[in-house]
Amino acid sequence: MDDIKTPAALLTHNDEYFMREALRQAKIAFDADEVPIGAVVVHQNRIVARAHNQVEVLKDPTAHAEIVAITQAANTLSSKWLNDCKLYVTIEPCSMCAGALVLARIKTLYFGAKDPKAGACGSCLNIANHTALNHRMNVVEGILAQECGALISDFFKRKRIDQAKFN
Amino acid sequence: MDDIKTPAALLTHNDEYFMREALRQAKIAFDADEVPIGAVVVHQNRIVARAHNQVEVLKDPTAHAEIVAITQAANTLSSKWLNDCKLYVTIEPCSMCAGALVLARIKTLYFGAKDPKAGACGSCLNIANHTALNHRMNVVEGILAQECGALISDFFKRKRIDQAKFN
Repeated sequence: MDDIKTPAALLTHNDEYFMREALRQAKIAFDADEVPIGAVVVHQNRIVARAHNQVEVLKDPTAHAEIVAITQAANTLSSKWLNDCKLYVTIEPCSMCAGALVLARIKTLYFGAKDPKAGACGSCLNIANHTALNHRMNVVEGILAQECGALISDFFKRKRIDQAKFN
Repeated sequence: MDDIKTPAALLTHNDEYFMREALRQAKIAFDADEVPIGAVVVHQNRIVARAHNQVEVLKDPTAHAEIVAITQAANTLSSKWLNDCKLYVTIEPCSMCAGALVLARIKTLYFGAKDPKAGACGSCLNIANHTALNHRMNVVEGILAQECGALISDFFKRKRIDQAKFN
């Protein structure tokens, strides 16, 4: 009977589906002239938070997609710990966000493209899996990496062109 | 004329004064049954943000004193960067908060007691001054360290007693 899928299994979305939802959030950020990064939090195969970077509109350096998504998910689930949650984000989290994932006890982190300049989940530092800290998580990287990275590259290319126009 | 103090100089508060304000915030957290950590942000000798840990009341793992204080200060100054600001916090910031200080470009961090378990400004990690990141800050530690640390110790002692009562 192993080959007969249960209704629950049929409903199971895959990691690419959730990363596409994060990418949709990143595109909202792009259109709002924010650094285009998006995130979703998934609990029991259901999205419980969707967020994008809002640093410019809120004039708040802490308003990264992951921080906003964690706050939303904790609110939705009425829990300060997100032990059974997966977080999907288009770009490798920075130190602040990786630290927040540890505090929230996120089970698995999925990210799209690496951030060689400030990534804190393996690139510059590894806060997601640090022996000194009291929580470590599974990290899956590279989901839709090309699309996630291209959005960032396009954003900064546009910024440079805009800046050149004003000089 | 060097020995005559200007009114501005007379008004200049010292680091202990600002740390006492952070400690007042920590005591508010203590009374609210939150891990007692407080922070203030200072701009041009004026406090522009006061905050304490609100993880329990908000059920939000990101609601550390420093994060709330940075958001408040950025809002008060209408700026996502706090280049000319000093942040005073009773306990050494964790990875999330140290990462936020880097993103906010805080000029100088003053903290009271070290956090040997999760401190990310020299104890476990050093995110406040990491060669790979694009901002580094002055760090002054040990201001009212005994009082800041004692508040945390008393809090967890009370927690253990309360827990023992229910077992």
